[in-house]
Amino acid sequence: MATVVTFGEIMMRLTAPGHQRFAQANGLDITYGGGEANAAAALAQMGVSAAHVTVFPENDLGKSAAAFFHKSGIDSSHFVFQDGRLGLYFMEVGAGIRPSRIVYDRYESAFAKLNPAAFNWDEIFRDARWFHWTGITPAVSASAAEACSDAVKTAKKLGVSISADVNYRRVLWQYGKKASEVMPDLVADCDVIVCTVGDAEDIFSIRSSDFESMATQMMDRFPNLKKIIATRRDTLSANHNRLTGLCFDGKQMIESPTFDLKPIVDRIGGGDAFMAGFIYGSLKYEDTNKALSFATAASALKHTIEGDFNVVSAAEVEQVMEGDVSGRLLR
Amino acid sequence: MATVVTFGEIMMRLTAPGHQRFAQANGLDITYGGGEANAAAALAQMGVSAAHVTVFPENDLGKSAAAFFHKSGIDSSHFVFQDGRLGLYFMEVGAGIRPSRIVYDRYESAFAKLNPAAFNWDEIFRDARWFHWTGITPAVSASAAEACSDAVKTAKKLGVSISADVNYRRVLWQYGKKASEVMPDLVADCDVIVCTVGDAEDIFSIRSSDFESMATQMMDRFPNLKKIIATRRDTLSANHNRLTGLCFDGKQMIESPTFDLKPIVDRIGGGDAFMAGFIYGSLKYEDTNKALSFATAASALKHTIEGDFNVVSAAEVEQVMEGDVSGRLLR
Amino acid sequence: MATVVTFGEIMMRLTAPGHQRFAQANGLDITYGGGEANAAAALAQMGVSAAHVTVFPENDLGKSAAAFFHKSGIDSSHFVFQDGRLGLYFMEVGAGIRPSRIVYDRYESAFAKLNPAAFNWDEIFRDARWFHWTGITPAVSASAAEACSDAVKTAKKLGVSISADVNYRRVLWQYGKKASEVMPDLVADCDVIVCTVGDAEDIFSIRSSDFESMATQMMDRFPNLKKIIATRRDTLSANHNRLTGLCFDGKQMIESPTFDLKPIVDRIGGGDAFMAGFIYGSLKYEDTNKALSFATAASALKHTIEGDFNVVSAAEVEQVMEGDVSGRLLR
Amino acid sequence: MATVVTFGEIMMRLTAPGHQRFAQANGLDITYGGGEANAAAALAQMGVSAAHVTVFPENDLGKSAAAFFHKSGIDSSHFVFQDGRLGLYFMEVGAGIRPSRIVYDRYESAFAKLNPAAFNWDEIFRDARWFHWTGITPAVSASAAEACSDAVKTAKKLGVSISADVNYRRVLWQYGKKASEVMPDLVADCDVIVCTVGDAEDIFSIRSSDFESMATQMMDRFPNLKKIIATRRDTLSANHNRLTGLCFDGKQMIESPTFDLKPIVDRIGGGDAFMAGFIYGSLKYEDTNKALSFATAASALKHTIEGDFNVVSAAEVEQVMEGDVSGRLLR
Amino acid sequence: MATVVTFGEIMMRLTAPGHQRFAQANGLDITYGGGEANAAAALAQMGVSAAHVTVFPENDLGKSAAAFFHKSGIDSSHFVFQDGRLGLYFMEVGAGIRPSRIVYDRYESAFAKLNPAAFNWDEIFRDARWFHWTGITPAVSASAAEACSDAVKTAKKLGVSISADVNYRRVLWQYGKKASEVMPDLVADCDVIVCTVGDAEDIFSIRSSDFESMATQMMDRFPNLKKIIATRRDTLSANHNRLTGLCFDGKQMIESPTFDLKPIVDRIGGGDAFMAGFIYGSLKYEDTNKALSFATAASALKHTIEGDFNVVSAAEVEQVMEGDVSGRLLR
Amino acid sequence: MATVVTFGEIMMRLTAPGHQRFAQANGLDITYGGGEANAAAALAQMGVSAAHVTVFPENDLGKSAAAFFHKSGIDSSHFVFQDGRLGLYFMEVGAGIRPSRIVYDRYESAFAKLNPAAFNWDEIFRDARWFHWTGITPAVSASAAEACSDAVKTAKKLGVSISADVNYRRVLWQYGKKASEVMPDLVADCDVIVCTVGDAEDIFSIRSSDFESMATQMMDRFPNLKKIIATRRDTLSANHNRLTGLCFDGKQMIESPTFDLKPIVDRIGGGDAFMAGFIYGSLKYEDTNKALSFATAASALKHTIEGDFNVVSAAEVEQVMEGDVSGRLLR
Repeated sequence: MATVVTFGEIMMRLTAPGHQRFAQANGLDITYGGGEANAAAALAQMGVSAAHVTVFPENDLGKSAAAFFHKSGIDSSHFVFQDGRLGLYFMEVGAGIRPSRIVYDRYESAFAKLNPAAFNWDEIFRDARWFHWTGITPAVSASAAEACSDAVKTAKKLGVSISADVNYRRVLWQYGKKASEVMPDLVADCDVIVCTVGDAEDIFSIRSSDFESMATQMMDRFPNLKKIIATRRDTLSANHNRLTGLCFDGKQMIESPTFDLKPIVDRIGGGDAFMAGFIYGSLKYEDTNKALSFATAASALKHTIEGDFNVVSAAEVEQVMEGDVSGRLLR
Repeated sequence: MATVVTFGEIMMRLTAPGHQRFAQANGLDITYGGGEANAAAALAQMGVSAAHVTVFPENDLGKSAAAFFHKSGIDSSHFVFQDGRLGLYFMEVGAGIRPSRIVYDRYESAFAKLNPAAFNWDEIFRDARWFHWTGITPAVSASAAEACSDAVKTAKKLGVSISADVNYRRVLWQYGKKASEVMPDLVADCDVIVCTVGDAEDIFSIRSSDFESMATQMMDRFPNLKKIIATRRDTLSANHNRLTGLCFDGKQMIESPTFDLKPIVDRIGGGDAFMAGFIYGSLKYEDTNKALSFATAASALKHTIEGDFNVVSAAEVEQVMEGDVSGRLLR
Repeated sequence: MATVVTFGEIMMRLTAPGHQRFAQANGLDITYGGGEANAAAALAQMGVSAAHVTVFPENDLGKSAAAFFHKSGIDSSHFVFQDGRLGLYFMEVGAGIRPSRIVYDRYESAFAKLNPAAFNWDEIFRDARWFHWTGITPAVSASAAEACSDAVKTAKKLGVSISADVNYRRVLWQYGKKASEVMPDLVADCDVIVCTVGDAEDIFSIRSSDFESMATQMMDRFPNLKKIIATRRDTLSANHNRLTGLCFDGKQMIESPTFDLKPIVDRIGGGDAFMAGFIYGSLKYEDTNKALSFATAASALKHTIEGDFNVVSAAEVEQVMEGDVSGRLLR
Repeated sequence: MATVVTFGEIMMRLTAPGHQRFAQANGLDITYGGGEANAAAALAQMGVSAAHVTVFPENDLGKSAAAFFHKSGIDSSHFVFQDGRLGLYFMEVGAGIRPSRIVYDRYESAFAKLNPAAFNWDEIFRDARWFHWTGITPAVSASAAEACSDAVKTAKKLGVSISADVNYRRVLWQYGKKASEVMPDLVADCDVIVCTVGDAEDIFSIRSSDFESMATQMMDRFPNLKKIIATRRDTLSANHNRLTGLCFDGKQMIESPTFDLKPIVDRIGGGDAFMAGFIYGSLKYEDTNKALSFATAASALKHTIEGDFNVVSAAEVEQVMEGDVSGRLLR
Repeated sequence: MATVVTFGEIMMRLTAPGHQRFAQANGLDITYGGGEANAAAALAQMGVSAAHVTVFPENDLGKSAAAFFHKSGIDSSHFVFQDGRLGLYFMEVGAGIRPSRIVYDRYESAFAKLNPAAFNWDEIFRDARWFHWTGITPAVSASAAEACSDAVKTAKKLGVSISADVNYRRVLWQYGKKASEVMPDLVADCDVIVCTVGDAEDIFSIRSSDFESMATQMMDRFPNLKKIIATRRDTLSANHNRLTGLCFDGKQMIESPTFDLKPIVDRIGGGDAFMAGFIYGSLKYEDTNKALSFATAASALKHTIEGDFNVVSAAEVEQVMEGDVSGRLLR
Repeated sequence: MATVVTFGEIMMRLTAPGHQRFAQANGLDITYGGGEANAAAALAQMGVSAAHVTVFPENDLGKSAAAFFHKSGIDSSHFVFQDGRLGLYFMEVGAGIRPSRIVYDRYESAFAKLNPAAFNWDEIFRDARWFHWTGITPAVSASAAEACSDAVKTAKKLGVSISADVNYRRVLWQYGKKASEVMPDLVADCDVIVCTVGDAEDIFSIRSSDFESMATQMMDRFPNLKKIIATRRDTLSANHNRLTGLCFDGKQMIESPTFDLKPIVDRIGGGDAFMAGFIYGSLKYEDTNKALSFATAASALKHTIEGDFNVVSAAEVEQVMEGDVSGRLLR
């Protein structure tokens, strides 16, 4: 009965405090996240009814991850618990010229072992207006890919708008199928995707020198697509980036204002906040320009927030979107 | 028997750690502060004998607040304890484009319920050379306004110099009187005030397009005033401001050098440090230029200090005032 | 049996957390360091076999300092334990215009009371290719100076390359001899030294207006020297410096690229990381340009690392040295 | 649509870390709790569908409190947000012979200012089997008492079982009515109450020398009551108590086994955990003995849990209830 | 070239702070341990030359685990790095009647995937007098069992004393062989084993009602065994145990004094400390009584130490062993 | 102008967190204390006007120590700042059978180098009723002994009551005089001393088998003494002691009730709290029994307080003294 539905894995993130390297740390800060769940949680923070569908291990860690997302206010009716482990990733935070580093430890997770029959998508999508998934999910395992396909097909059937962040990660595709075999069918039913020039080449063998050219070819190939979006990130240092939102709607390129991200409090989930912002903007505004500005402002704010998902209200995003980037004290 | 006397409320400040939002915090850092007490504590750190006059609740929190200010080395002989609660404010620290936020919870405090007869101002001002108050105090309650008026009149009678930071906060004036009814009489006896163009319009209905014009009109209206001072703050981001000191002495405008505040460790109390610096400078130097430079350098340093009040020696301020802003390691 | 041998005192460093001043701190973070040991530990992190020779007090603090350096992976076979105290230094971390401050408390340490006969340098240097010491060691006590002299002479005899960071600190020379009496004999046997224009004047009475002129005069005076190196540090604020490596090889000046250090996570040990980098580069590359770039990149990375010594791999340094200073997230 | 419904205020608790006194603390740990919400959260942790009804201030602190309870998994559909402040209480933790201390700061809270018309109790109780309230709620304000009365009457009408912890706190009754005027009508409709000999005398003027005598008189007076329960707490020190559950069912006294509480990790909420356990036991078991043992075991476990509400599964309680109190490591 | 050699997996332990449950934790304390490595590290702390042989993943986490054990002062020459993951276990700390809980996440670790040919046991045992392994190692994988068998056979061949903690954990044996198939051959070559009545039944199908009877039967079956040892732990609560050392030497039963463990700071590694103490005692004392007392005193002290391995000197153990259990302050 | 005056050194204490050993700690908690200053601070917390006289180093650490004691509310008018270092001591906290350990690092402190002429004792004792010193002070250096002697003589001359904790520490007496040469003259003028059987033998060569016999002999030797007091501490474990106050008044032995100290939060300063309690009791009560009970109850409470000095009100002590040792929660 939620307006927006997302589907994907949730992992525990273990981060070395401050700027410590792994070998220096005597404790790790923990939080939980996943690209699709981050989008749902960000939407819930902005007052949109959002449900996330996922599988957790039936142990204390799975329950902790579930409780963490309960706190965000999302609809958790479709959390499934079963045997397996919780996917993990370890992170150390860089500074200046030293990059942040992530070590993944996510294989054989409960989510990867999910049973596609566990989800009644017709029921899940009751009253929904938007479904969002990412390219991580079909990469994780054959059964996850199958469940994702079921979800996409059901959403399409029910007239629910579909978005995806295609997000190609070569190292994840290890169950015997390639992204190029699985993703096209899934993307074909989408309305909006996040896709970069690199993603398009890696997954769809579409070569292009710029975003517009790539987007044009993608739309030719996938005529159901209405918008292709992305962010352009200019990485000046680990603590200082610049961010611009891009959107091709089949006719023209739109660019958002550019935001200076400085200092970056936490870079993880910036893309998920962008996607959540674009969903919010698409549901609320007629105007794609506005939706894109909202999305980029939301993502810019995410870089000032600790943890994987955005914790800002729609009003806070709108203030930044309208140009107030002074960070002036609010009493 | 202190050289400088200040009067006003002290509150507990509860700050979410790091850049956490309130909903993310599992603990809050605590410190204590109040505009006038911050000035007294800063002066004590710089070696000036300073007494603060205030009222605390007669409970563990009031005693903790008092002990915190004991530590600063101020004269606490005139701390009064009575029934009531301790005023609180909650703070989360922004970053870049995300502003810091303050939630006040200060109504019905012990200070607001003070009994004006509890203070023997003639005794308090024995040997004093300077009295400082702010526009917060008469805003809090009728009895606080009455005590403030008693203090100003006694100081005036005894030839003690008087300063005020007029600091208009509309939301505080809730006991039935308006700032425009109460403040003029109090300001009339002052020698030095901190006042912005906005304050002058809100409190005294003096409209002006710039500081000099405002200050000229204020001096026409309040002929006892000798100097009107303020800082101009250029807010580039939550972590980066620029600060310049301004002073009109009835004849001319003086501007201090501009200091780059980057990064800002703690923005709260920057104005109080400026005022304390100006009092210090006025007591020590003949030259108003020097006093203003000292005040602005002191305020700039405050932005690098955690907590509400400045913890720097006069020598440290002088080093910055003389242009050493390199932050070079001192062994 | 280590490739590189270093000799010098290790102290406990006690740092006020965050940006707190000493009087605000309720705890102090501890780490351990010393110029020569920092170089050894940095080399061990980069995969070079490095042994450090030192003396610790025979108490719990000495053992803790030893264990800390065990962790770095250096060869600790030549740690000596005897009566005395552990040298300490206290640090508060500045910000922007406020400098960091260090308070030393190191007199009468176990190291200062070392017995020169305790070290069998012929045995220590077995298989060694490089020996490194600094001007701190002969400043600490007569016996430390004697042990340093023994080490230098033995290394020279065995054909081991010798480097020194001459690092003049006037306040340390308190046992009756001056740097100008002790240092020349020690430097005469060196192959590479870190020396600034100020050091050369203070220790060797060599006056010069620039690095090249100083280095030329030093080489005239000490014909065994093959390279004189240093860093030029442009201090923009406590959090932002610029760093360039300099090298004079008797014929020409070489300058490394300049690195922007922003933000500075921990400035201590930047020079030791530079020296360790130069040793690494000298052992690995033919090309002095490369060695200098490696050294400067290593020092730049050290400024992003907490603690006294560098914790980066050679591969990480090489990536920066090759120009990747974007701090882009590594998954 | 929850099985159990609870109604009452939620406050922020600010606790000095470890065994620090307030004046020693530099930070306060925060958690949120309230007698009725604690019971709901404990039931949710044990797998029972539980909804809490309350009012929060419409500010960042109210939202944080709400999010904290979201995390517990309770149904939060009936959280109301409006003007006002969040009730607070400050706590320092004793040790041995030194008692823990609480300073309340809860007047004028948003909850106290609630509008009784805001709650549609017929809707709230749809599908409910149990309603729980405490004597704190009607003490807070006239409107809270009115809402509580509405809830009790509606529950009674709908055949929902009703429990109350009568919990007399003299200092709270400040809005002009006495407990003795308000409580009898509310208790008259209850099925189960927690009541001590002291409560019965203070509220209902029933004097008695022991629990059974009191309970007998209470049942005579309130014939709808089916069970009167309580715990007997033997306070050996701040860290060591003994706990026994008591129940009078109109015919006989039942006592649970006695549990040794040592060490006590957190004593707050022990009574709420007892009540939650009794509700759980009453819903699950036929046997009152079993329900009482479950309740007392649940309360005993709560004393090992940080925060205001119990975080244990029903299986964990059952293990203790069946006599396994060895605390043996579970791998 | 170490006196004692141990072989086994090292895991990262992630512990919720204080008495928090997993779902309450926002960070996890980290340490590293493994039964055999814990014994080696404890011996190194007591001044015995000890080498540990293991396999780590070739990533940042493996390096961190290795560095952690470097710090303990063990000989790490035989650490092997290869592909795979680091085994993990998560722990929450109980209190009183609430047990501590461990969640293992160790499958598919780099150690489990070790290549037996990677170890040159003849070289590793050069100069060794004692080899120690546990029943965890052959349970982990076929290749680990094979390496363990190689080690045992080589040690036997070289006349090195062999000890094992047979430590049966049913859940670990998942690679197709049962403990009963693998363990007998390994135990047949041992001189000393830790074995409980339960272990003997589970692994060797030896049924017995008490330790002595079990030990007699084991010695009949494995005539090479010289001593069978164990501890008897009386679990009064999660914070209070009693511990007694047991030894059967083929002729008679020896019992150590009983130690009161109260409070228990960290229970993990108590058995490893016992084994390390018995190895130390066996190497140092003629008298088995003394060795057993030393072992039990060492284990008792371990329960007061944070982390997986014992950090006490031999002198500290001897003081407790000689009856000083007063915990009197040492200045 | 204070009622009680104390004189002695203040040191920084650096404590490993929780139950960590020194080698495990990554930070140290800091507090400041000294036997005599602890007594003054405890008296100030109980509402008695108390001044402490001491010497600090003229550096950031000395100022921090001074500020720490400012916070306690003592009169700090007689703090002297001069060259030298701040005395330090490092502590790790034991548990159960493992003792706490202290490593002193206090030689050559600013206090040890004090100039006796710096103190105007006639001025310091104006309005004073009690002077307290300990045997640590004359042990530190010849000049400290001289200043102590000046103070004692002046107090005697002015009719101020004098107490001393004779507290013999052999290792401190290193400046060429023995305690037996210095202490008798100082003790001869005292009214009350804390002295154990061991102290009396070590300093005054008075042998005795019990407290009463020792006290009788001491009074024969020092006829000015009116009371000799001490505590008897029964050390059951590092966390559990029993404490009884003893007093001999020349005629009879008085014993206070015995208090169970369990758990012990911080044992340091227990004796200073006892002395402060006895001074408080002597000033307030006629009855020595009451004074002794107050003193022992105060000391018992100190064991529940973190840091070196007692932070309890007189009312809290009286409640314990009157037998309420249940540690029952105070709301």
